[in-house]
Amino acid sequence: MGEQPLAGVTVLDFGQIYNGPYAGYLLAMSGARVIKVESPLGEGLRGATGSESFPFTMLNGLKETITINLKSEAGRELVVGLAKRADVLLENFRPGTMDKFGVGAQALLKANPRLVYAASTGYGSSGPHRDYLAMDITVQAMSGVVSITGNDGEPPLKSGPALCDMLGGIHLYATIVSALYRREQTGKGAVIDVAMQDSVLPTLASALGAYYRFGGTNPPRTGNRHQALGVAPYNLYPCSDGHVAIICVRDGHWRKLTDLMGRPEMVDDPRFADKQTRAEHMEETDAAVEAWTSSLTKDEVFRFCQAGGVPCAPVQSLDDVVNDPHLHARGALHRATHPVFGDVVVPTTALRIRDVEPPTPQFPRKLGQDNVAVYGEFFGHSEQDVQALKEQGAI
Amino acid sequence: MGEQPLAGVTVLDFGQIYNGPYAGYLLAMSGARVIKVESPLGEGLRGATGSESFPFTMLNGLKETITINLKSEAGRELVVGLAKRADVLLENFRPGTMDKFGVGAQALLKANPRLVYAASTGYGSSGPHRDYLAMDITVQAMSGVVSITGNDGEPPLKSGPALCDMLGGIHLYATIVSALYRREQTGKGAVIDVAMQDSVLPTLASALGAYYRFGGTNPPRTGNRHQALGVAPYNLYPCSDGHVAIICVRDGHWRKLTDLMGRPEMVDDPRFADKQTRAEHMEETDAAVEAWTSSLTKDEVFRFCQAGGVPCAPVQSLDDVVNDPHLHARGALHRATHPVFGDVVVPTTALRIRDVEPPTPQFPRKLGQDNVAVYGEFFGHSEQDVQALKEQGAI
Repeated sequence: MGEQPLAGVTVLDFGQIYNGPYAGYLLAMSGARVIKVESPLGEGLRGATGSESFPFTMLNGLKETITINLKSEAGRELVVGLAKRADVLLENFRPGTMDKFGVGAQALLKANPRLVYAASTGYGSSGPHRDYLAMDITVQAMSGVVSITGNDGEPPLKSGPALCDMLGGIHLYATIVSALYRREQTGKGAVIDVAMQDSVLPTLASALGAYYRFGGTNPPRTGNRHQALGVAPYNLYPCSDGHVAIICVRDGHWRKLTDLMGRPEMVDDPRFADKQTRAEHMEETDAAVEAWTSSLTKDEVFRFCQAGGVPCAPVQSLDDVVNDPHLHARGALHRATHPVFGDVVVPTTALRIRDVEPPTPQFPRKLGQDNVAVYGEFFGHSEQDVQALKEQGAI
Repeated sequence: MGEQPLAGVTVLDFGQIYNGPYAGYLLAMSGARVIKVESPLGEGLRGATGSESFPFTMLNGLKETITINLKSEAGRELVVGLAKRADVLLENFRPGTMDKFGVGAQALLKANPRLVYAASTGYGSSGPHRDYLAMDITVQAMSGVVSITGNDGEPPLKSGPALCDMLGGIHLYATIVSALYRREQTGKGAVIDVAMQDSVLPTLASALGAYYRFGGTNPPRTGNRHQALGVAPYNLYPCSDGHVAIICVRDGHWRKLTDLMGRPEMVDDPRFADKQTRAEHMEETDAAVEAWTSSLTKDEVFRFCQAGGVPCAPVQSLDDVVNDPHLHARGALHRATHPVFGDVVVPTTALRIRDVEPPTPQFPRKLGQDNVAVYGEFFGHSEQDVQALKEQGAI
């Protein structure tokens, strides 16, 4: 087995909710030692009552877990002491939070010039919106995602997945590792500034294509169709037991589909002869595909299309996804039994290198569970010392 | 100014459409030298008629651009020769495509054991679905994204942004840089296997939270509301000129919002006293917020909420986004005049390090524009040699 890519790297993960913790989780799955640092109350996603949320479970396994009270002088000294021996500190507080407590990037890089100090926020650390509060749904609204989701003539709709949070988290991971690579060449640390909003902009590619194709005006929402109404078939089509997605980006895909549909004559019909004319006759094109799919099951359409060389997929429910045999065969999902949730699956990591075995996912550790071990290791503190830190409100 | 993180790294970018090219674009924006390699016909997104698509423009600036015909023996020799002197080769063909031509990972790592060979596909290089055709909309269907977007009682809906493609691309970038970091420690190259589907799974966090909260059954679609219907206010609310997103994750947000709404008495009403009871009285909670927002403009609600400490954002159109003063002030968007599209903006990079200036975006170069320069530099070929390669169908 090959070496984990980030073996030997130590990370202090001050992340909360989704964005920061996802970056920390990926760092752990790449072999880094990740120490999750929470306030003595626990981070927001842990759950005030002590009952963990499933997303917390998904994002915080494999992290040693300690507490620090940033409002305490002794707590802040612990941050500086840890940062002196860490490679990375990541956080996704509001801009200026760590600075306010005297443990921001400037102070910590002074203590450790090789530190990679990595912050992720909704809108970034510069520009007029820098101090605005942001969550996934508000960044979806601000970044245009909401305006391009849903049907024409109906109100805008949010996208179901937490894409802004997770795009923020993976761009944070990517920048951290880029800075670590740079440190190998230059010896220098870095201050990282990732904005969720910036990280979402590339996903507008098709929509911006439609915007500029229409001369710089907002295109209509297109439901399940192509953003610029430039490709057909491109839609979700009803089956006897649900829906499938079918897309024909090349004329070859369309030829193969007409064969499957038993409608080979459509290829010679000038209305359906090429990409442009099919797009101009989108209703008729979609009607022909629907006439075929609606008498079949999702699985039948899927298997026929894939065997016939036409891009297609069934609309899978969450239940289908967590039990997807492909994802399990590939190791993208991991089964485990959780003390509260029972039998669950958690995603492993999408960062896959051949012959490198990522660590086996674990459930998160309890709040402050590693205080004695970590403070003992880093500062030589005894169990009594750690108890005293707790009593004085430092951890 | 600080050093670019990937200065000195040479990348061969065989990417096409969105996924691979986005990874290549980010590598270029991080300071790598990126050589885009296309077939003599150009990659799919370039546009068959020579008229570039806007997404192609967004994703392929800053790349030297050459052609190679993989079906030609001499073309394949060029791939091997380039790979001997490159640090990274990335591609997002169907699994096995490069192998079929004898220039897959195994062959190229034999020629250059330090090479990072990075492939991204819809479903990955292992598992029963590995050979299935995939595009953004089919991966959205397969990964559960479609099933959790849209309104309860209505058909499923795709998310507007191309999140699967771009999540694939940024996870590909992240794995490449992780492997480069590992190479600094071990001297070894790597073979990377990123699946778009794997990379989307973490965005299901909230939806999976609802799934397990409901005992492992598929939750209903919730439109613009919280996936588990566990938070209120959490919605898009109508204003006189559009919609805003408002979310109150803490009781403090709600207290501040009731002040703004002129409804402070609601805080003492047991129906709205805490997160749980507000979620149980979601219709009434949303109605109270809507009664307030509907008489105001988006901008008024946004400014009142941000000043009052309530997370909020206007639903911005594409036109709002490309002209967003914050994104321009921050340098997240770049204005330029395109020969076909006129005045456009393109996203720069979300991978931001303080005091490091990313390269200024450029428009893509013409198909094969750097053949003479690159083949001259790598192989000592004269202009005549390159012309001969072209005539024999190698490039």
